[in-house]
Amino acid sequence: MIERIAIFGTGLLGASAGLALRASGYDGSIVGFNRGAESGRIALASGAIDSISTNPLETARASQVIVLATPVFAILDWMEKLAAVLGPEQLVTDVGSTKGLITAAADRLYNRPDRPGFLPGHPMAGKERSGAALGDAELFRGAVWLLTDNPAWKRSTASAALVEEWRDLVAAMGSKVLDIDCARHDELVAWVSHLPQFVATALSAVLQEEVGDAPELKDVGGRALREMTRLGASPFSMWRDIAHTNSPAISNALQALEQHLAHLRENLRTPALREEFDIANRFRQGC
Amino acid sequence: MIERIAIFGTGLLGASAGLALRASGYDGSIVGFNRGAESGRIALASGAIDSISTNPLETARASQVIVLATPVFAILDWMEKLAAVLGPEQLVTDVGSTKGLITAAADRLYNRPDRPGFLPGHPMAGKERSGAALGDAELFRGAVWLLTDNPAWKRSTASAALVEEWRDLVAAMGSKVLDIDCARHDELVAWVSHLPQFVATALSAVLQEEVGDAPELKDVGGRALREMTRLGASPFSMWRDIAHTNSPAISNALQALEQHLAHLRENLRTPALREEFDIANRFRQGC
Repeated sequence: MIERIAIFGTGLLGASAGLALRASGYDGSIVGFNRGAESGRIALASGAIDSISTNPLETARASQVIVLATPVFAILDWMEKLAAVLGPEQLVTDVGSTKGLITAAADRLYNRPDRPGFLPGHPMAGKERSGAALGDAELFRGAVWLLTDNPAWKRSTASAALVEEWRDLVAAMGSKVLDIDCARHDELVAWVSHLPQFVATALSAVLQEEVGDAPELKDVGGRALREMTRLGASPFSMWRDIAHTNSPAISNALQALEQHLAHLRENLRTPALREEFDIANRFRQGC
Repeated sequence: MIERIAIFGTGLLGASAGLALRASGYDGSIVGFNRGAESGRIALASGAIDSISTNPLETARASQVIVLATPVFAILDWMEKLAAVLGPEQLVTDVGSTKGLITAAADRLYNRPDRPGFLPGHPMAGKERSGAALGDAELFRGAVWLLTDNPAWKRSTASAALVEEWRDLVAAMGSKVLDIDCARHDELVAWVSHLPQFVATALSAVLQEEVGDAPELKDVGGRALREMTRLGASPFSMWRDIAHTNSPAISNALQALEQHLAHLRENLRTPALREEFDIANRFRQGC
């Protein structure tokens, strides 16, 4: 019964959501809004959205579900603005990478019987480059779509029904819905998503400085190098917000890794090196 | 004119070399020797070798080219033993990951008119798991095969001719031959190969310790996690020798990375974060 979905932010995730919804058989309308106009035009041309909104608040008021697919701080801005204009028969959801501030804002501004609903979400899918042109109907297939829903929230009957419908649409896009506590989410993604990103950024940066202009680099670097630095291409625009909104957990993870690297460095010729390889091997066996 | 090649060490690289030689049309005989018998049987069954040697020194004496495809310290051991029994009409080559000690041993024990020839080599190809069963005729296709040959070496005419033939066989296996100075080799691979490996090992180990038993781990970890930890499965047996024989360069690279990680950690909320992402982005544009 969702007849109209608005997607705010038609970059990689927003455009992919539009394409995946359409591919899954969703036949309501999908309206897109993007601050930069070019991205909206690409999303429109690809069929990710049916039309481009020129008045986002009006578009939101005319939609049942509003999907916020921007970096985290822009999501928080939209949450403030939309809470003031939407009603209890509407649902806002998001695809933001950190959930602490967003879930707190959902608790403060949404999810009471007389207010719109908000369902905090985070699909574990993405690419190292952004933009509507990379939109992919299959991006979410096989991925986990984390939700930091709160059972204590007292939503209106209408927005509670939209939550159930949106969960079904997420599954229809090919994702596996997984409910997780909000604090646990931010701690866990610091380890399994943010730490790998910052490691790839640091590794790419140190290689750029040390061997970036070595003429043999292109020849000598193999699959391992390409793979370990792929995420070095990730856009700062998105990661700035993640770094800002999950700093303590990321800082903790980075420090733990620095200690492991120093331990390796100090034991390149001692039996402790074997122990570190053994522990690493165990992680991959469990993976 | 190479009629008989001996491959010492029929693990991933040795078995792949046998398969690639055969696939490239080489029609001489290929004899394999491996300390553990199982690996030799697998290589034989796959067609990577024609027969298994039970007397490696005798096999070496009866071969024109001996390929050492073991970890580095075993290569150094074989170099000592073979130098004592081979003649100037024979060539030994290797696929070892560090070239400093091996090239020095080649200088000391080989490459004079009355001694066997030695050509130090290093194909930039591999997998995160070892063993003859993963042997692959296509492993070297498109990869660079580094050689730390020394123009000052005065080889016998016969072994100099075998060097040229072996270079042609490497090209026939699909690799691009690249000559590089031995010290430069070890410095460069510390950055582009050893550092990524030790980073993946440290990352896998810290994740094993911190979230290895988290029930959500399998669900939440995405492509980035799998990719950044793939090399965590790498065998210690091979990396022990690399760590031992290239310690100063690896230590230097690890320390530089630790400094970048600390810099990121201290700047999660400052504009310096953007600079680090910009430098990382530049590396990927050049890659």
